Amino acid sequence: MSQVEQRLAEMGITLPTPAAPAANYIPFRVVQNIVYISGQLPKQDGNLLYPGIVGKDVTQEEGYEAAKWCAVNLLAQLKVACDGDLDRVECVIKLGGFVQSTPDYKSHPEVINGASDLMVEVLGEAGRHARFAVGAPSLPRNTSVEIDGIFAIKG
Amino acid sequence: MSQVEQRLAEMGITLPTPAAPAANYIPFRVVQNIVYISGQLPKQDGNLLYPGIVGKDVTQEEGYEAAKWCAVNLLAQLKVACDGDLDRVECVIKLGGFVQSTPDYKSHPEVINGASDLMVEVLGEAGRHARFAVGAPSLPRNTSVEIDGIFAIKG
Amino acid sequence: MSQVEQRLAEMGITLPTPAAPAANYIPFRVVQNIVYISGQLPKQDGNLLYPGIVGKDVTQEEGYEAAKWCAVNLLAQLKVACDGDLDRVECVIKLGGFVQSTPDYKSHPEVINGASDLMVEVLGEAGRHARFAVGAPSLPRNTSVEIDGIFAIKG
Repeated sequence: MSQVEQRLAEMGITLPTPAAPAANYIPFRVVQNIVYISGQLPKQDGNLLYPGIVGKDVTQEEGYEAAKWCAVNLLAQLKVACDGDLDRVECVIKLGGFVQSTPDYKSHPEVINGASDLMVEVLGEAGRHARFAVGAPSLPRNTSVEIDGIFAIKG
Repeated sequence: MSQVEQRLAEMGITLPTPAAPAANYIPFRVVQNIVYISGQLPKQDGNLLYPGIVGKDVTQEEGYEAAKWCAVNLLAQLKVACDGDLDRVECVIKLGGFVQSTPDYKSHPEVINGASDLMVEVLGEAGRHARFAVGAPSLPRNTSVEIDGIFAIKG
Repeated sequence: MSQVEQRLAEMGITLPTPAAPAANYIPFRVVQNIVYISGQLPKQDGNLLYPGIVGKDVTQEEGYEAAKWCAVNLLAQLKVACDGDLDRVECVIKLGGFVQSTPDYKSHPEVINGASDLMVEVLGEAGRHARFAVGAPSLPRNTSVEIDGIFAIKG
């Protein structure tokens, strides 16, 4: 088991088996040791966690948890991109965070921190990354958060 | 004519001549054989197709067609980036899909599939890509869909 | 002083000292001479300029100014990524522009032009870039504009 997965295990998190793509896109594309991962939803065992609009149906704390589970699913896809060995991750480059939220919502960073904190907790300094955190009026399947990512891996 | 354009011709699609940029941005930038293309609108012969809000003025099927035409315009820009030879495309890396939609809309992936399907139809396995599909309350010129893209080309 | 900062000085703009990150993300990540910079807000001396919704509380002209200040903050982060020497910038690759706007807003490109124009004004041809310009219902801290960026630098 990679060190990354050991740290996840200590947090009580087991990486899910990534879902097969439902359309003509793929979970990730690797070019020149850069991994581009599709937008991930906060799914656990096939169930969408914390659906709804942050600031209305979903609290900031629940949004933080949703962002954390987006990050777990990013790592699950990244593991496949690394042929099963997450210790090949060089660094997280960038996360793109979309928060389904009301027009008066202002705390998108605090929500997306759920993903940023997880990355640093399991990857250390290599987990730090550039990011954006923005609002969206609606997201697929009524998810509260969607996050995509760019990662560097060792060749 | 490249194989890619032959397949487009079989689908009844001729690549448009890309519009000149209207401001201090450019349609694409190539760095290290990676092509970054600006967000494209569903334009055909200079006309914006299917303007409006998906889930209100625009049906899902029309949104799918709009996404397809965003992809056609991405390929038109990509052709210029490849000095006219689309067979130099190595792969589609990532598409970023924005759907102008109501707050209760949930089917953004089904809309952006219009672009994903076209890429795979004309490029085969090389057309598969990572992507995100999210909602936006408003998009430029009242377009229903805007899609940007990252591609790898042979040097 | 770099040529880039001299041109900024002629425009009356001094690059701010970039703010320290407030969470587990970082202002930028450099991989293979590509700099990925986090979404920047239009801050000057720690104050958020032109907060509010474009098309409602904020005019298009104010949105343009806000986008310009997002670009100034991108350059301030980029300077740190270049170890203080902005003449090491090879080119601006891409800007991602989010405009906090009403559902009927249509002129996002005219707002984001504030950033595109500044980049070309201070960097010349190297400042031209791919970009997207989209609407968001809400953005962090009620900012009217948020822009992230990808840049190429000399090794």
